[in-house]
Amino acid sequence: MRPSGRHPEATREITLTRGFTRHAEGSVLVTFGETRVLCTASVETGVPRWLRGKGQGWLTAEYGMLPRATHTRGGREAARGKQGGRTVEIQRLIGRSLRAAIDLKKLGEYTITIDCDVLQADGGTRTAAITGGCVAMVDALRHLQRSRQITTDPLKQLVSAVSVGIYKGEPVTDLDYDEDGAADTDMNVVMTEDGGIIEVQGTAEQAAFSRRELDALLDMAEAGCSQIFEKQREALGVRD
Amino acid sequence: MRPSGRHPEATREITLTRGFTRHAEGSVLVTFGETRVLCTASVETGVPRWLRGKGQGWLTAEYGMLPRATHTRGGREAARGKQGGRTVEIQRLIGRSLRAAIDLKKLGEYTITIDCDVLQADGGTRTAAITGGCVAMVDALRHLQRSRQITTDPLKQLVSAVSVGIYKGEPVTDLDYDEDGAADTDMNVVMTEDGGIIEVQGTAEQAAFSRRELDALLDMAEAGCSQIFEKQREALGVRD
Amino acid sequence: MRPSGRHPEATREITLTRGFTRHAEGSVLVTFGETRVLCTASVETGVPRWLRGKGQGWLTAEYGMLPRATHTRGGREAARGKQGGRTVEIQRLIGRSLRAAIDLKKLGEYTITIDCDVLQADGGTRTAAITGGCVAMVDALRHLQRSRQITTDPLKQLVSAVSVGIYKGEPVTDLDYDEDGAADTDMNVVMTEDGGIIEVQGTAEQAAFSRRELDALLDMAEAGCSQIFEKQREALGVRD
Amino acid sequence: MRPSGRHPEATREITLTRGFTRHAEGSVLVTFGETRVLCTASVETGVPRWLRGKGQGWLTAEYGMLPRATHTRGGREAARGKQGGRTVEIQRLIGRSLRAAIDLKKLGEYTITIDCDVLQADGGTRTAAITGGCVAMVDALRHLQRSRQITTDPLKQLVSAVSVGIYKGEPVTDLDYDEDGAADTDMNVVMTEDGGIIEVQGTAEQAAFSRRELDALLDMAEAGCSQIFEKQREALGVRD
Amino acid sequence: MRPSGRHPEATREITLTRGFTRHAEGSVLVTFGETRVLCTASVETGVPRWLRGKGQGWLTAEYGMLPRATHTRGGREAARGKQGGRTVEIQRLIGRSLRAAIDLKKLGEYTITIDCDVLQADGGTRTAAITGGCVAMVDALRHLQRSRQITTDPLKQLVSAVSVGIYKGEPVTDLDYDEDGAADTDMNVVMTEDGGIIEVQGTAEQAAFSRRELDALLDMAEAGCSQIFEKQREALGVRD
Amino acid sequence: MRPSGRHPEATREITLTRGFTRHAEGSVLVTFGETRVLCTASVETGVPRWLRGKGQGWLTAEYGMLPRATHTRGGREAARGKQGGRTVEIQRLIGRSLRAAIDLKKLGEYTITIDCDVLQADGGTRTAAITGGCVAMVDALRHLQRSRQITTDPLKQLVSAVSVGIYKGEPVTDLDYDEDGAADTDMNVVMTEDGGIIEVQGTAEQAAFSRRELDALLDMAEAGCSQIFEKQREALGVRD
Repeated sequence: MRPSGRHPEATREITLTRGFTRHAEGSVLVTFGETRVLCTASVETGVPRWLRGKGQGWLTAEYGMLPRATHTRGGREAARGKQGGRTVEIQRLIGRSLRAAIDLKKLGEYTITIDCDVLQADGGTRTAAITGGCVAMVDALRHLQRSRQITTDPLKQLVSAVSVGIYKGEPVTDLDYDEDGAADTDMNVVMTEDGGIIEVQGTAEQAAFSRRELDALLDMAEAGCSQIFEKQREALGVRD
Repeated sequence: MRPSGRHPEATREITLTRGFTRHAEGSVLVTFGETRVLCTASVETGVPRWLRGKGQGWLTAEYGMLPRATHTRGGREAARGKQGGRTVEIQRLIGRSLRAAIDLKKLGEYTITIDCDVLQADGGTRTAAITGGCVAMVDALRHLQRSRQITTDPLKQLVSAVSVGIYKGEPVTDLDYDEDGAADTDMNVVMTEDGGIIEVQGTAEQAAFSRRELDALLDMAEAGCSQIFEKQREALGVRD
Repeated sequence: MRPSGRHPEATREITLTRGFTRHAEGSVLVTFGETRVLCTASVETGVPRWLRGKGQGWLTAEYGMLPRATHTRGGREAARGKQGGRTVEIQRLIGRSLRAAIDLKKLGEYTITIDCDVLQADGGTRTAAITGGCVAMVDALRHLQRSRQITTDPLKQLVSAVSVGIYKGEPVTDLDYDEDGAADTDMNVVMTEDGGIIEVQGTAEQAAFSRRELDALLDMAEAGCSQIFEKQREALGVRD
Repeated sequence: MRPSGRHPEATREITLTRGFTRHAEGSVLVTFGETRVLCTASVETGVPRWLRGKGQGWLTAEYGMLPRATHTRGGREAARGKQGGRTVEIQRLIGRSLRAAIDLKKLGEYTITIDCDVLQADGGTRTAAITGGCVAMVDALRHLQRSRQITTDPLKQLVSAVSVGIYKGEPVTDLDYDEDGAADTDMNVVMTEDGGIIEVQGTAEQAAFSRRELDALLDMAEAGCSQIFEKQREALGVRD
Repeated sequence: MRPSGRHPEATREITLTRGFTRHAEGSVLVTFGETRVLCTASVETGVPRWLRGKGQGWLTAEYGMLPRATHTRGGREAARGKQGGRTVEIQRLIGRSLRAAIDLKKLGEYTITIDCDVLQADGGTRTAAITGGCVAMVDALRHLQRSRQITTDPLKQLVSAVSVGIYKGEPVTDLDYDEDGAADTDMNVVMTEDGGIIEVQGTAEQAAFSRRELDALLDMAEAGCSQIFEKQREALGVRD
Repeated sequence: MRPSGRHPEATREITLTRGFTRHAEGSVLVTFGETRVLCTASVETGVPRWLRGKGQGWLTAEYGMLPRATHTRGGREAARGKQGGRTVEIQRLIGRSLRAAIDLKKLGEYTITIDCDVLQADGGTRTAAITGGCVAMVDALRHLQRSRQITTDPLKQLVSAVSVGIYKGEPVTDLDYDEDGAADTDMNVVMTEDGGIIEVQGTAEQAAFSRRELDALLDMAEAGCSQIFEKQREALGVRD
């Protein structure tokens, strides 16, 4: 039924390549099928003005899409002089999701910036960005610990994200571009390893959806995130 | 338990005053307790360039907060030269939600712009804006029909919105500012009159939330929206 | 002769509602007929950089029009990314006029920001804004005194403003939108209670005007401001 | 009494050099003492969108100050990315004043842009700009007539401007920088050759001013403009 | 002598990977040692307004650096709202260089946009971008020919670029980041296959350079470009 | 052969008028034929943030063109809200070139800003700006010495610039507008008095150029700069 021939509950092939670039404290190329996002985590000393002196750190995220990551070329936001609404919405989501994964008190007065740049888009860039950004963030936290800048681990637990939706009447996991454009409902779910929900964003595209459909989608999201946590742990060399 | 003394499932007092200003095709002052939002619906002939010739209309929304709608003065976005991320996120949500209430084909090549300007903020401005914006939109649709610009009613059904959250461990409806800042989880739900869900946005503020909590919140949101639909129908003089 | 049937020297009905919103130190809804402007006065500790250490305060004003305050919708300045020339011109006039009403030395190192947001426009928004802004400013000054932040009253005297113009060859007071578009000359006058002039801005719209006409307009403005001072004193509960 | 030793009613030396640069249809260097402004008038075919098809022309003005026209360097507006409020206010005044000098119907569908760039500032740049801009505009109108693009003369009459103010209690004409900073009242007056008033902008800087003072200032402005019209006519080679 | 141990005339290892992303008509990952730039060529129908109806095409280039392509994180230009001066300078150079490689008349009314996004920076990003952008451009031209949108080959000849400089008194080729910061002179040279020069930009960093040094640098650039043309031809599968 | 009838190696008439405006520490009107640029040098105490505490000064340049310096009016960059790419490129070149003329250590913690504003353009504005800017800079350095703010002369040697190009197959010096548009190659060369090269920027406009042509152009540039140094020394009253 799915254009890709995937089973409804199957995610695309997911890979997480650490150390993809060399300068950042964390640098991960994440792919969800043909979607490819470069996630870097940069550590800077200090926190934004409004947090100074509170003895805690901060994490923020920025998102961008290379102009020709998509089927047709999109204008370069730097040239247009402003970030689009979709960009702003996504980077706020990434930031909130990853802040939920760490204890900002334990981070101390450091700021971690997660840059998620989409090299190639085929649906699900925001969930790939959260998933890959989490791994880059862990590398940055390890860097801070190795260099003795912090002495306890701020990580509470891993965070991953997946999109689910109703495509031709059926709930499916990890929609690609072809499914995304045709789906009735599109939902992004961010979860913690122990099954907690960090963020749910569900939107009716064509028709309202019911509680029953919402439940089915949440079930799928839980299953999808479980698979993704496996990939993250494997990439990070941790056992569950 | 609640700072306001309300029962967990009680919304604040909600009022919808139609014809609050005189020039717009629809103009509604909506209040949710001390939150007051002026929602106007403006009709313009034509559609954005990318929709031309497709025989359908468009609806978009813009959101703003007067600088001193809040406890401390916020900078004027027009003076700073850009809309903040929160503003962008909210106006996109309002637009999506209200587009879901109408049949754009039946609207014909008209554009309706919903302006939601917060005169006074006390939590829940986005759900108030959707609720009031829907009533303003209906007035604009009636205007188009009365003036014979369109001959069928594009309204599919009313849409309303409410915030729910977990405050001190308990699910509560329609959080005010004091609750909002202290809530563990904050969720905005947009629904249709027949119980369908248009949009769910739930965010864990302090700790992840469980499926069980999510279910409880959705139950509360359904009940809240039911009350709000009553207010909308009453304001519009329609029977259910 | 006037579209509204008013006598040439009659202002529209003027109301000043204090405490219109709750967060600002001063909040006044001013109406000049169908023109309605929400004026808030916000007090912040400190002064702009170029005034620091001079032992004086500052007052500034910002002006905005809700997109659908007018007959046809105007673009939202925050969305366009800049304030228009008319907006800039008006907010500078409001700021200059209200600074003339107070002794900045007595204000101490506080900054008062007057926000004037037009909810509904029918001509004369800038004179309404100065008139209402003055009352909001007085409330903010009283707040500073009540809270013992300052010990002397910075208010020198009240300031009010009215527009006058030549409509169909006759001088008239307080032009509404219909008159404004057709007037030959349009003049805004800001005065003090004792009859001093703070600001005169007269513009020939169709034809130059003579000294005699200017004199007639100034006479009318004086009479108009006298009536408006009555309204201000009444609203503030002060005797003259 | 005056820092420059001038009589109260004496303007500074005023020169108008036509053809100062070669590309513009009109190009005039105007000096009021040490204030020097380059005014060019550029003719372009067509009118702004909102005037199309109305069979009339348009005139607009832009104003700028070279960064080091002043005692201390001011930031370059192009580099800061926006024109300051003072700039906007001044260029709107210049445009209104010069539009009053011509019959836009007779201009036909041409747009004249008056650029006023201050090479050196010593007070009174806006009145110099209006005075010099008028001469540049006349040259542009003559160019249109010589090239047979228009067949009647759109010029109604010359327009000139002068500043007047109250300095140390005395009314004085054409304030220079030293006087300007110390004046109690500052007024710019734009007049037509036959004594009509185009624009009056008077501002109380330290204390309100009286009707009597206003009258004295207007008398001085009339006398000042008379002298300036002489200079304009001389520069243009016309007799009065 | 060189930090990398390279011979003075040795370029770094250069690779050109075609088809690096899938949507663009041309997509090349170019590496000069640790410098990695993704170059895409996008074809769009039509030309900029000022070229319409002239029967020719256009090519333009945009350049960007991912925020953490560098040792320390640079601000995201899209978030700051403008492209920096260095970015503007580089993208103009890339555009001019590649336009020199093609016959715009033969291109017909198409616009090719070359996007060069630096994934990792280690010196020489602009010469890498020109070199990789040329290969991406050729792929886009082949695409236009294969799809019969154009019938003749607009390519005149390949273009490549290399940096040369004087490092510790000696001329060296293809400076990396460590050399770049310490070089006395830095020169970028863009050449054609037959030895013609498209662009020379030489800058004295510490001390002026002599004609003799300039000659030595140009000799090195010629030799460097020869090697790079080999890489380009190999990547494109063409014989020389 | 040349439109102006000049010999190939002849520059236009070059004049350097010091003290053209009165407020700047250095103010020079430079003309290269009909090209006229006002160059001012402004001294400010302090250096940019990234240089603080390093015991050295800074020099930067800004460039602008009056809207009607050109044959047809160009938009005002301040009104458009950003500087164009050409402007950015030129001002960076001017800054680099003049920084090469001085010892920033000897300047101490002062910043010199060179503003180059084109009053009339006829080709070669950037080389005129560097040439005139150098003289203005020397005046500013003398001002600092006279006022005892610095005690040693930061000037290393004078810097001048000239454009050379291949016009109708022949190398020519100091191209004017008519030649510039038709030239095959355009090169700007910045030199020091002792024949060192500070900057070379050569661009093939129509066809690539050869090493032989480059050599001929450099010979011409050297001869041109020699003449220009004479003019600079004469203007500054120094012997060579």
